Amino acid sequence: MQQGVRITELFSEEEEYLGKTVKVQGWVRTKRDSKAGISFIELNDGSCLRNLQIIAEHEESDYREVLDKLTTGSSIGVEGKVSPSPGKGQSIELHATKIEPYGWADPATYPLQKKRHSFEFLRQIAHLRSRTNTMGAVTRVRNRLSYAIHQFFQERGFHYIQTPIITASDCEGAGDIFRVTTLNPTNIKPGESENIYEQDFFGRPTYLTVSGQLQAEIYALSLGKVYTFGPTFRAENSNTSRHLAEFWMVEPEMAFYDLQDNLQLAEAFTKTIIAMCLEDCAEDMDFFARFMQPSLRENLEQIVNSSFEIVTYTEAIDLLKKSTEAFTFPVEWGSDLQAEHERYLTEKVFQKPASIIDFPRAIKPFYMRVNDDTKTVAAMDVLMPGIGEIIGGSQREERLDVLLEQMQLKGISVEDYRWYVELREFGTAPHSGFGLGFERLVQFITGLGNIREAIPFPRTPGHADF
Amino acid sequence: MQQGVRITELFSEEEEYLGKTVKVQGWVRTKRDSKAGISFIELNDGSCLRNLQIIAEHEESDYREVLDKLTTGSSIGVEGKVSPSPGKGQSIELHATKIEPYGWADPATYPLQKKRHSFEFLRQIAHLRSRTNTMGAVTRVRNRLSYAIHQFFQERGFHYIQTPIITASDCEGAGDIFRVTTLNPTNIKPGESENIYEQDFFGRPTYLTVSGQLQAEIYALSLGKVYTFGPTFRAENSNTSRHLAEFWMVEPEMAFYDLQDNLQLAEAFTKTIIAMCLEDCAEDMDFFARFMQPSLRENLEQIVNSSFEIVTYTEAIDLLKKSTEAFTFPVEWGSDLQAEHERYLTEKVFQKPASIIDFPRAIKPFYMRVNDDTKTVAAMDVLMPGIGEIIGGSQREERLDVLLEQMQLKGISVEDYRWYVELREFGTAPHSGFGLGFERLVQFITGLGNIREAIPFPRTPGHADF
Repeated sequence: MQQGVRITELFSEEEEYLGKTVKVQGWVRTKRDSKAGISFIELNDGSCLRNLQIIAEHEESDYREVLDKLTTGSSIGVEGKVSPSPGKGQSIELHATKIEPYGWADPATYPLQKKRHSFEFLRQIAHLRSRTNTMGAVTRVRNRLSYAIHQFFQERGFHYIQTPIITASDCEGAGDIFRVTTLNPTNIKPGESENIYEQDFFGRPTYLTVSGQLQAEIYALSLGKVYTFGPTFRAENSNTSRHLAEFWMVEPEMAFYDLQDNLQLAEAFTKTIIAMCLEDCAEDMDFFARFMQPSLRENLEQIVNSSFEIVTYTEAIDLLKKSTEAFTFPVEWGSDLQAEHERYLTEKVFQKPASIIDFPRAIKPFYMRVNDDTKTVAAMDVLMPGIGEIIGGSQREERLDVLLEQMQLKGISVEDYRWYVELREFGTAPHSGFGLGFERLVQFITGLGNIREAIPFPRTPGHADF
Repeated sequence: MQQGVRITELFSEEEEYLGKTVKVQGWVRTKRDSKAGISFIELNDGSCLRNLQIIAEHEESDYREVLDKLTTGSSIGVEGKVSPSPGKGQSIELHATKIEPYGWADPATYPLQKKRHSFEFLRQIAHLRSRTNTMGAVTRVRNRLSYAIHQFFQERGFHYIQTPIITASDCEGAGDIFRVTTLNPTNIKPGESENIYEQDFFGRPTYLTVSGQLQAEIYALSLGKVYTFGPTFRAENSNTSRHLAEFWMVEPEMAFYDLQDNLQLAEAFTKTIIAMCLEDCAEDMDFFARFMQPSLRENLEQIVNSSFEIVTYTEAIDLLKKSTEAFTFPVEWGSDLQAEHERYLTEKVFQKPASIIDFPRAIKPFYMRVNDDTKTVAAMDVLMPGIGEIIGGSQREERLDVLLEQMQLKGISVEDYRWYVELREFGTAPHSGFGLGFERLVQFITGLGNIREAIPFPRTPGHADF
């Protein structure tokens, strides 16, 4: 069928299109009939936030009948002439000569009417919510950020690798994980449970991955610089505005990078992709500033132009202890920083992004590199004002003897991680990496209150719809 | 730490680097000692297939001791002067002034020695196999193709969407699927099985997705043009060289596209990403031609320069019936085409890629658009000489009444797919899409005999290692 011009193209090349006859295709957002015998149709095709105004004359016999049935949500193709618009808020409009209806939307039952719906309600109709301004804008911003991530790493010689989703290792015992099985739990007979996994697809217990880091290390120690960008999972029973059971992670991993190199990369990465998004999604970002957070653009621009503060965990504890703030959680060397502490540091003390490094060895995973003081590890958390941690990373322990000691201390089975240990036996090299939760980033950049709006189909306890 | 120059950069900007002192970092592939007191070290850093030759003089006191311990697999940093190479097969070499050892590799235990290992063996050491020429080349080609996929769609105004991995729908009953659960199958008491899912994470049975298509349709019918690129799963007990239990799929989905538009997009897509790979991975592709398939480059170039044949299923059946070939499977209107039929058509009849369209309604899924003859649907299979089907797609049924009729015929529950039906009730529009199995494409382009080499960590029955 004849492809129409996309509305974003019409707007961005107005001069080019003015006076020409074009076809557009999309969904009716609103229709308003004037007494003068004209209908004003706001048409959206998802290519941008803005609607194209269609001017349809009631006397036009070619589409008079169509016009009567057109309501919010209908899908149409329109041919017409691109003309200067006298209306405010738009420079061009389309004078329809032909309207082809594709699909109606009965106003008695179509759930998306011209009013603001709550996000809770919209989540229940996730098959229609991408037709709203907010979710359309989220989708475009999410798309731009996804591609920016690839552009950033590709331009720097990183190789994109896809690490496995199904894994037999329960990865550093990172909280609750999902099992993957072909066994039918309603069909297990008593007494079968002993050797039950022999009948399972992989012949052993398998899980959904919580991180691609350990496998990415394999590729860093052969290809040099790699990154993953894929789904990861947590079966935590957390019903908060910041947790998803299924979310996407970006995990770069680099040979011959120490913690300082890692910090620099994380900063350049964050700033570059935010800047790309601000530049290329200006209209959508203005929308979020208007409806979510007035200072959104300003805050993000400040991040792009700042240089991130770097402090050690020990220095951070000192700063917190000196403060007069009334924290709910006690501040003590050896305890993890709480959200309130992180926010105090970025929002009150530094007033910009800050990376905390060199955390106590006891509170961090076995693979982080032990510092010379033997009490801390070369970890880093990158904190943003307003949202807290968005990046966690470390230099990895590349020394065989120290890794084995760490595994023993933390109770990690050398047998289960034989291959990981062997990476230190054969051609080991200093290397580092970090992870960024993609939906947290989307939430941060759009100012959305709940992370469930930052992903097309959120999975949370009790919810796996669509 | 000081970052070295990557070897691919040295080679691609030889003129620039000649005579300069640089640092490189990587893994020793081989070391050969001459009687004249010189060691020749082949260093690889994963940035390209080629090794950099390091010239190390035994008399150089700075690294004499290091040199003795350097063996295949060791990781080192080398500083030296880029010099013209008198040796054949390379234009430059590095005269070492300093060698910094990062990690040794005991030749008595390091599994990757300088000889050809079988792919079966390499799969067992998947943590080291990316250090081989073949797996390094696969990784770079896979990376280039991944990025080419994003570039192709982004340049055409498509939005990348991430469809869910965990799903409550068993998607058109597509064969065997994996269950996702937090229930422990060894810990289910008799009598509990009745309402067992009430205790499960999502409160209902959930599975790993077999396709993002149905969810992508949601976004096509709001954003216009979208694509997914993510992992999908099949729990089929297939131990073949073409099947994986976990593989990545690309699934574009476009509103206002009919089958002809869909065919054109699939052809442009295939040709563009193959051309990008041939151009940017020339060295790796030459390697595959040399060791996998001598005619590889020629075949791929022919595909890039061909225009794909388009025939209906009915025409294809006629061609097969007319042939004198002795097929194992009978040729009959109404049966699916077998691999031998597909290969005969592309390799003998057309001698180029061919798209078969308009398949019998009875052998295709419920969502494909019913043609006017009511006997066929607007399906398409894109076949490649040598490998068969790499793309499957269709125009989707956008008419509510026909969709409901199809669902009834195929025994699909309207209740389970309520939201999918509603997309046809509210603002439905003609739309189309297709799916491409990414590892099949990688296998096809590299000429690899087994798909298990086309992915970093293959998952197959009984295998979920690493």
